[in-house]
Amino acid sequence: MSMEGRGLLVVVSGPSGAGKGTICKGLLETKKDIVVSISNTTRLPRDGEVHGKNYFFISREEFLDMISKDGFIEYAEVYGNYYGTPRRYVEENLHQGRDVLLEIDIQGALQVKEKYKEGVFVFILPPSMEELKARITKRGTEDEKEILRRFESAYKEINYVSRYNYFIINDRVDTAVEKLRSIITAEKCRVDRFKMKLIGQ
Amino acid sequence: MSMEGRGLLVVVSGPSGAGKGTICKGLLETKKDIVVSISNTTRLPRDGEVHGKNYFFISREEFLDMISKDGFIEYAEVYGNYYGTPRRYVEENLHQGRDVLLEIDIQGALQVKEKYKEGVFVFILPPSMEELKARITKRGTEDEKEILRRFESAYKEINYVSRYNYFIINDRVDTAVEKLRSIITAEKCRVDRFKMKLIGQ
Repeated sequence: MSMEGRGLLVVVSGPSGAGKGTICKGLLETKKDIVVSISNTTRLPRDGEVHGKNYFFISREEFLDMISKDGFIEYAEVYGNYYGTPRRYVEENLHQGRDVLLEIDIQGALQVKEKYKEGVFVFILPPSMEELKARITKRGTEDEKEILRRFESAYKEINYVSRYNYFIINDRVDTAVEKLRSIITAEKCRVDRFKMKLIGQ
Repeated sequence: MSMEGRGLLVVVSGPSGAGKGTICKGLLETKKDIVVSISNTTRLPRDGEVHGKNYFFISREEFLDMISKDGFIEYAEVYGNYYGTPRRYVEENLHQGRDVLLEIDIQGALQVKEKYKEGVFVFILPPSMEELKARITKRGTEDEKEILRRFESAYKEINYVSRYNYFIINDRVDTAVEKLRSIITAEKCRVDRFKMKLIGQ
């Protein structure tokens, strides 16, 4: 185990369409010393989504059973579907000193923050609201009403940035990925995080 | 001026011989959007040191005159010589939105922290005390007593790390430089730093 002991919990969040998925993917392509937690969801797979890669697609019954067994560190119902982060995978990896990346929505991130105050909470902002609208629209899998609902929700959600530790404006993916990588590197250098260990030396 | 407005004050400090000079030099070689503050000193130049590059070498009278005019953001007498950071250069650059790098000793850094709480304070640690001793000795410009005094002082000074925001263990220069660069990038993404501006948008 490294000097750091317990791994770092990195929570990447933000409004739908801000590009948090793309940024996390970019990080994972080059950074191999972080594991990603795969969420469970009851919604149906979108085109190209793979079970066990994008999500674990499970039934409503299975999801409710896991809730009853305290099996999630966060879960939420969004647009009528359940999404949740299984507790066991996160806990085991952090305990073994591995950093864990969560890419989750804002409701979920705020739940995680209640229990994991030492986590690093990163909010992804779209470069502008117009851009956000374009991205939500371009996804092309939702009808008009769904798009409008998402856009309004995203607009309200942006105020939650104040509850996070860091923000990244996603105007260029490579720059945004580099910022996320820097945040993780910097957090490991924070004196507050390891004060007890250093003083003891 | 960027969204950030005022520039970031980055203070790199640590015990003598920890390698803070080498790390700052490494950062400046590739990072062009940060200016470095050159200290004034009353000590004599070491071999190869250049006036206006390593230090401004000034007389004791000139130094005392600047003190009386509040011309330093920090100054200290170390081993019988004065060292100080001229206020004007730092203030002008920060005001113009430029990041400023200070490489100063611990006494000086703690003075700067009193006045610039929003600064980023980075403590460079030697990989081990043995290594620190070797580095101080290798410099080869001091006599035995001077070396011993520096080593004892460095040992005591390491406890000051708890007053800093970040620490970097200088076991490999390129890794240490990368950490310093990441800290600066990450600090610009901190929500606390720009909360007011973001909420106002």
